[in-house]
Amino acid sequence: MCRWLGYFGEPIRPEELLYVPEHSLIVQSQRSEQMAHPLNGDGFGLGWYGLRDEPGVYRSPSPAWSDRNLREISAQVESPLFLAHVRASTGTPSQQTNCHPFRLGRWLFVHNGFINEYQRVHRELLLAVDPELFDNIEGTTDSELLFHLALTFGLRDDPVGALERMAGFVEQTCERQGIDTPLQMSVGVSDGERLWAVRYASGPEVNTLYVSAEAHSVRELYPDRERLQHFSDETRIVVSEPLVNLPGVWHELAPGTALVVQGGQDEMRPFAPRVPAGV
Amino acid sequence: MCRWLGYFGEPIRPEELLYVPEHSLIVQSQRSEQMAHPLNGDGFGLGWYGLRDEPGVYRSPSPAWSDRNLREISAQVESPLFLAHVRASTGTPSQQTNCHPFRLGRWLFVHNGFINEYQRVHRELLLAVDPELFDNIEGTTDSELLFHLALTFGLRDDPVGALERMAGFVEQTCERQGIDTPLQMSVGVSDGERLWAVRYASGPEVNTLYVSAEAHSVRELYPDRERLQHFSDETRIVVSEPLVNLPGVWHELAPGTALVVQGGQDEMRPFAPRVPAGV
Amino acid sequence: MCRWLGYFGEPIRPEELLYVPEHSLIVQSQRSEQMAHPLNGDGFGLGWYGLRDEPGVYRSPSPAWSDRNLREISAQVESPLFLAHVRASTGTPSQQTNCHPFRLGRWLFVHNGFINEYQRVHRELLLAVDPELFDNIEGTTDSELLFHLALTFGLRDDPVGALERMAGFVEQTCERQGIDTPLQMSVGVSDGERLWAVRYASGPEVNTLYVSAEAHSVRELYPDRERLQHFSDETRIVVSEPLVNLPGVWHELAPGTALVVQGGQDEMRPFAPRVPAGV
Amino acid sequence: MCRWLGYFGEPIRPEELLYVPEHSLIVQSQRSEQMAHPLNGDGFGLGWYGLRDEPGVYRSPSPAWSDRNLREISAQVESPLFLAHVRASTGTPSQQTNCHPFRLGRWLFVHNGFINEYQRVHRELLLAVDPELFDNIEGTTDSELLFHLALTFGLRDDPVGALERMAGFVEQTCERQGIDTPLQMSVGVSDGERLWAVRYASGPEVNTLYVSAEAHSVRELYPDRERLQHFSDETRIVVSEPLVNLPGVWHELAPGTALVVQGGQDEMRPFAPRVPAGV
Repeated sequence: MCRWLGYFGEPIRPEELLYVPEHSLIVQSQRSEQMAHPLNGDGFGLGWYGLRDEPGVYRSPSPAWSDRNLREISAQVESPLFLAHVRASTGTPSQQTNCHPFRLGRWLFVHNGFINEYQRVHRELLLAVDPELFDNIEGTTDSELLFHLALTFGLRDDPVGALERMAGFVEQTCERQGIDTPLQMSVGVSDGERLWAVRYASGPEVNTLYVSAEAHSVRELYPDRERLQHFSDETRIVVSEPLVNLPGVWHELAPGTALVVQGGQDEMRPFAPRVPAGV
Repeated sequence: MCRWLGYFGEPIRPEELLYVPEHSLIVQSQRSEQMAHPLNGDGFGLGWYGLRDEPGVYRSPSPAWSDRNLREISAQVESPLFLAHVRASTGTPSQQTNCHPFRLGRWLFVHNGFINEYQRVHRELLLAVDPELFDNIEGTTDSELLFHLALTFGLRDDPVGALERMAGFVEQTCERQGIDTPLQMSVGVSDGERLWAVRYASGPEVNTLYVSAEAHSVRELYPDRERLQHFSDETRIVVSEPLVNLPGVWHELAPGTALVVQGGQDEMRPFAPRVPAGV
Repeated sequence: MCRWLGYFGEPIRPEELLYVPEHSLIVQSQRSEQMAHPLNGDGFGLGWYGLRDEPGVYRSPSPAWSDRNLREISAQVESPLFLAHVRASTGTPSQQTNCHPFRLGRWLFVHNGFINEYQRVHRELLLAVDPELFDNIEGTTDSELLFHLALTFGLRDDPVGALERMAGFVEQTCERQGIDTPLQMSVGVSDGERLWAVRYASGPEVNTLYVSAEAHSVRELYPDRERLQHFSDETRIVVSEPLVNLPGVWHELAPGTALVVQGGQDEMRPFAPRVPAGV
Repeated sequence: MCRWLGYFGEPIRPEELLYVPEHSLIVQSQRSEQMAHPLNGDGFGLGWYGLRDEPGVYRSPSPAWSDRNLREISAQVESPLFLAHVRASTGTPSQQTNCHPFRLGRWLFVHNGFINEYQRVHRELLLAVDPELFDNIEGTTDSELLFHLALTFGLRDDPVGALERMAGFVEQTCERQGIDTPLQMSVGVSDGERLWAVRYASGPEVNTLYVSAEAHSVRELYPDRERLQHFSDETRIVVSEPLVNLPGVWHELAPGTALVVQGGQDEMRPFAPRVPAGV
């Protein structure tokens, strides 16, 4: 289990969300509030769209709270779209290649959750990854594998559809092995233009996911909060758990929901796993 | 703030105390129970007396809970006397040279606590260290400095006396600067023959410290606990907080107490800081 | 490409071979003499048979030369059989799970060499690993994969035969893809009782491998070298390149040779890759 | 001993100098050409002036050649002035706080060289540091200490003069202890506006230092080299050893020289250590 956030809006320094808020992602790395175990100390990562076509990625297996380089970098770059993640391992080693975000070309992926009894299906799921993509897998997490299954099922052309096919495929594979409630996932994906966020689980327990309210209504609610004033109307922040405890600022996504954050109107739609054709 | 343990008895593998108990030191690295903040994720160390005159020391700035090498080493060595420590930094960097135990020759030192407003007295205290010992200081913690002050004041000849002089000197130095309640310390020291443990603080709040009851009475209390049966009558375990929650197994040291664990009868005496002569 | 050594004999502290000799393995990590690029700075590992059935393994992605913990551990354990390795990556990340030795139960494996154009056959070779063994693979190196292929082909029952089948299988797989001179390997394997060493390559360039001469003849050659005197007649050291530059102390294994170091008479036999039956 | 470079000119991505040239700084971390031992694998750092008043600093004790984050960051920031350093320890630990550049406010400092018999004068030199600056010292290197001595002697007001006083003070202190040829230093300093570079040693052996020729003459020399064409006339690169082997591109600084790279005309003057007044 992990905590993550995604930002979409006018360019800001990532430190504004990683360090400054009362319950910032760095604070959550030490003591999150909406998890059975509050600790996310098994590494972290920041992926940001900046000067180049490809996003930059800074990942480390060290705890986020004591990493001085993260503080430097998140203060020295500006980005209109970034994903950050603090990791709580569900068994795989603490190493850089197991840290989120995972990347392929312009695409970034973060995940909170797990595949239930992952070891029993690891090999079978890995074999389903497009051989062309196989060598982009560098670590051993279920999360990185979910990303590559989604890529295999068309993430770059139809993000939500591909995530639904990925989820359907994982559920089908697990169920064939008699594994209950196979999938727990909140997922963040971006290509540098849009930010997709999904909240879903196979069973009744579903990890939380929130999106910030429209900036103008937030500003009206809290006219004295200086930091909130400078966010543009387009700004959206997606988080595993709120960064500040202010009523009206965060909307919880319903379980089984996909959100598309983009220029103009955002979209919200049901997220319905389906087994990919031909599988 | 930190958690530590010291073991004195027949040779065992350190894993027996680091990993096996319900509330082992590794568990305490993630969620200790007797601290305001339960996290001790800023590195760790194990110092053990083994095959050589000098103790071995394995230290790392990584979190203890995910360090695979610690698991290996603590399963592959045997020792009749060892000190282990999980670190919660009070500001100094997460780096190997800031991890406990600190060592000089045959001597090991672990510490839980802090010097209040350390930065204001750091330089002055450092200057008081015996110039011969100066280059044995490799890190930047108050803890390592306390060790070298105690060495300066005669730790190798008169351990408890030297710790009292160290505490007295630190308190005097801080008080001259107007610093309140200067010292918080539970300390473990060994030369491979004995294990000294001190519980002390300048003010009314004093970090906890416990010592295990005599092994034979523990065995009588819990005749069904297999693991407890194989500890010899000489065995003593000193801990920041209990490793198992069993009534009668742990005695809390009173604040202001020094304990000497040794062959034959252990000793318990008041710990009374005093300003060293000539200072 | 990498450097490694294997020791078989009376129990010694690994530091005797890792640090003490003029051209020790640690020196080789900075400047080996028999490699095109002399640097082996991408991590290291020590696997030793000691107090438990399973060997201990200490691995780290840091350079061996500056690792203080390696110095401690190799001075504090004693072992009659150990394998040590310093790594020069051929492309896969510097991370603990890519460091040698690799382990399964009582078995250890170290490798110097590579699979040519590994990325083109990685997936196919991985699929050939026994599914029961699949989740023991934690890294991404060709070396770890070679180990698991050898295990798949019977390493634990017939070590040299299984290594031959592994080599034959890799060569066949690569050749089907049009890959020239697929395999370069010097390999060390142990189960704690014996030490197997193989020198082989598909093409005419074959990485070096040496075994120490019989201890009694070494002692006669160099009666004044104190360190050489205390090795027993059973002692054998296998190395990628000599630890000391003394004529008569090291015998080069011929390319295409397998050596079995064991109690009693050692064995030397040709190493002949063959495609496993049923593949 | 170490290798470093400083860049002054129109904003570029640091990767252009760190990775792209034939004999880039990253190549030099593995095999420099102008050192007795070619290896600079004990950590690295990049300090760059960018979006904020304070420069960003990314430092790590890992080898530069395998650090993926350095590659990311040096591709994702742009800077008109940066300093980069690869470290070869002369004895102090491989840890982040011992990596260059060192920083105070807007000031950055990199160093190649050493104080001879540093341990004999470490304490005395440390005591000479302005107590106000004392707690900015986080590591244990002679280099960081040289920086803080220069700060103590007025670096921020009179950079070259302060470096001369620092050198004079170190030489005097060492000579009083009977230490020969006390100082070896090539130093790079910046405040974000100018770049100061000094080549100096107490004895006849002086570490190399080069500065790039004027960009227009470089372009004329190599009209076909595309990369050279886009450097502006103001551009200057200062390096421990050349990044490309092209005659006419690099001028060696004479021993005992200070260079000031700045907007308008650069300055070159003799560097003459002098004992600071009142010492």
